[in-house]
Amino acid sequence: MSVTAPRGFTAAGVAAGIKDSGGPDLALVVNEGPIRAAAGVFTTNRVQAAPVRWSREVLARGRVRAVVLNSGGANACTGPGGAEDTRDTAGRAASALGCPASEVAVCSTGLIGVRLPREAVLTGVDAAAAVLSRDGGEAAARAVMTTDTVPKTAVAEGPGWRVGGMAKGAGMLAPGLATMLAVLTTDAEVSPGELDAALREAVRLTFDRVDSDGCMSTNDTVLLLASGASGRVPEPGAFAAAVHRVCQDLARQLVADAEGASKEIAVEVVGAASEEDAVLAARAVARSNLLKCALHGEDPNWGRVLSALGTTEADFDPDRVDVAVCGVWVCRDGAAGEPREKADLTGRRLTVTVDLRAGENSAVVWTNDLTAAYVHENSAYSS
Amino acid sequence: MSVTAPRGFTAAGVAAGIKDSGGPDLALVVNEGPIRAAAGVFTTNRVQAAPVRWSREVLARGRVRAVVLNSGGANACTGPGGAEDTRDTAGRAASALGCPASEVAVCSTGLIGVRLPREAVLTGVDAAAAVLSRDGGEAAARAVMTTDTVPKTAVAEGPGWRVGGMAKGAGMLAPGLATMLAVLTTDAEVSPGELDAALREAVRLTFDRVDSDGCMSTNDTVLLLASGASGRVPEPGAFAAAVHRVCQDLARQLVADAEGASKEIAVEVVGAASEEDAVLAARAVARSNLLKCALHGEDPNWGRVLSALGTTEADFDPDRVDVAVCGVWVCRDGAAGEPREKADLTGRRLTVTVDLRAGENSAVVWTNDLTAAYVHENSAYSS
Repeated sequence: MSVTAPRGFTAAGVAAGIKDSGGPDLALVVNEGPIRAAAGVFTTNRVQAAPVRWSREVLARGRVRAVVLNSGGANACTGPGGAEDTRDTAGRAASALGCPASEVAVCSTGLIGVRLPREAVLTGVDAAAAVLSRDGGEAAARAVMTTDTVPKTAVAEGPGWRVGGMAKGAGMLAPGLATMLAVLTTDAEVSPGELDAALREAVRLTFDRVDSDGCMSTNDTVLLLASGASGRVPEPGAFAAAVHRVCQDLARQLVADAEGASKEIAVEVVGAASEEDAVLAARAVARSNLLKCALHGEDPNWGRVLSALGTTEADFDPDRVDVAVCGVWVCRDGAAGEPREKADLTGRRLTVTVDLRAGENSAVVWTNDLTAAYVHENSAYSS
Repeated sequence: MSVTAPRGFTAAGVAAGIKDSGGPDLALVVNEGPIRAAAGVFTTNRVQAAPVRWSREVLARGRVRAVVLNSGGANACTGPGGAEDTRDTAGRAASALGCPASEVAVCSTGLIGVRLPREAVLTGVDAAAAVLSRDGGEAAARAVMTTDTVPKTAVAEGPGWRVGGMAKGAGMLAPGLATMLAVLTTDAEVSPGELDAALREAVRLTFDRVDSDGCMSTNDTVLLLASGASGRVPEPGAFAAAVHRVCQDLARQLVADAEGASKEIAVEVVGAASEEDAVLAARAVARSNLLKCALHGEDPNWGRVLSALGTTEADFDPDRVDVAVCGVWVCRDGAAGEPREKADLTGRRLTVTVDLRAGENSAVVWTNDLTAAYVHENSAYSS
């Protein structure tokens, strides 16, 4: 269903020849109106790809006609030439669609530090524009895949309107944002300011709480475009909830398809003095390579949870913390609790629950196990 | 040569039956005087093992007669019972040596969250005390090994005096301190205050700059004991330099023997606005799982260096940073520089050099590559 599930959007995905494999590598998503409101959230990495720098400026004006996305190259750390490539990509789409280049956002993903094959990209934009369709959402979702093994799409519905979305991302998944590109669309009538508020809050609680491998990308981008084609003005709470559901769905799909992973791990911190503390503690646990190895080996090694918690400033007493692995409280009061043999870690989805016993706040951070397959995938070739 | 290289020290290493393997697992290092000055540096992890809590108090008084070290169990997260085990271990050594228990430091290493076999430890202390010898340093160094494949010892000499040392540590190697136990000895006549100053500065520049896997232990301890048996009062600068050399030597041995590693990687940051910035940037690079995988695969993937730098607050301009891998400047001005094929990564020792071009300061952080063997070693069994 993807980005074309809401009315007022067309999309396409084509093989432009950017990837050596010859697979689909360029997507185009077009807002056919009547309105063209948009909001965006970008990586907080200080090293930002050319398309991120460009799209930030586009989004600052709150109006987006189209988004060009390519896999096969991140166009990050490519100097002034890379910036030109992005600008000309937007310009080519603008010509095809009859709009200003300043209304075209660009997203790129792939290897850092290598220039994109310029002519292939520009020709690809023309080819995509020529096959735009109301059913192009799936093709677009496929064209942005890199090491992803499946396309990621999601849809949520409100009364008379929809929110649709697509995302890519399988490695370099870490906070602020998770490493990925995502485009959400809606046919509801929503202003740029309302889109921005709904998107920021949803991203903060979903994509920002995925930390697969602790590595933050230079290209992360999440865009939300509104066409208004439903003619409906949604109730703000219902709309925000729908955006949240689509973001959450896509974020979970990223974790489910992370490079080389064999486990999806929810690190849940409860009893925290503040939400900030809960996120801090959960993130420290989610980033422990030793714990991620242990969970890969289906070992409920709660000592590695405590040693990770101890590196944080979160409010807790080391002699009062409790830890459950898959529902079994293997650590009570900072020492051994129920027998670790009771915990069943054979499933793909695991839960590590930490009770800091310092307050009423909680948070969940999603991560993966650390596997030989992850090492292989990230050492055998450049990505 | 180890801890018995300086005069005034005896040591022993025995198999106490703590490890299932039946290998050596308990070491005793005794300061035979005439002075008993000592200093210590401990993990900054807020979750601290019982022996760390105990030894902190012992070292606060600046006087140490003996150190008991065991492998086969960390005695961390073991509640009040674990604290009793440590206290009684110190008491047993004190009885054997005829000194107060408050002059006996204790160090433990191994699995977190499991009580030590109390009788085995106490009997082992007696056995070690019975075989103390001027040549016992090597046996002591062997008895503290866990996943280490070789014992780690070092010696430095001054005019008429020596500094000796031993260390263990192969996993959970990360800042503040590197995860490990280390005991240094000297026969120089040095006060506790001077020992403390020399040790802190040396640790800050050596063990604290090893970051093998980003995981900080609950048990890290570095002790420095002075016997004064040489009768020489060293020149303070020369003494500090000798302590630094021994710490540096041991720290390098830890990196060389890190779990599952196939590369020793020096991440060198130059041109930093401050030493703090240099350490911050070097640590961020050293902690990137993606870069560590790339270097394992002998791929000079400088894009992963830049994406790690971009997560820090260090002062630099993303469009002016340079990166060399093994001496080849593959990134210039934040974009591709010399051909990456020129960089030879086939050796075991690799160098990643980052020039932030923001000042005159520098720092080196040592790390390892991320390998399938690391994953295997840390997932196949509890450690």
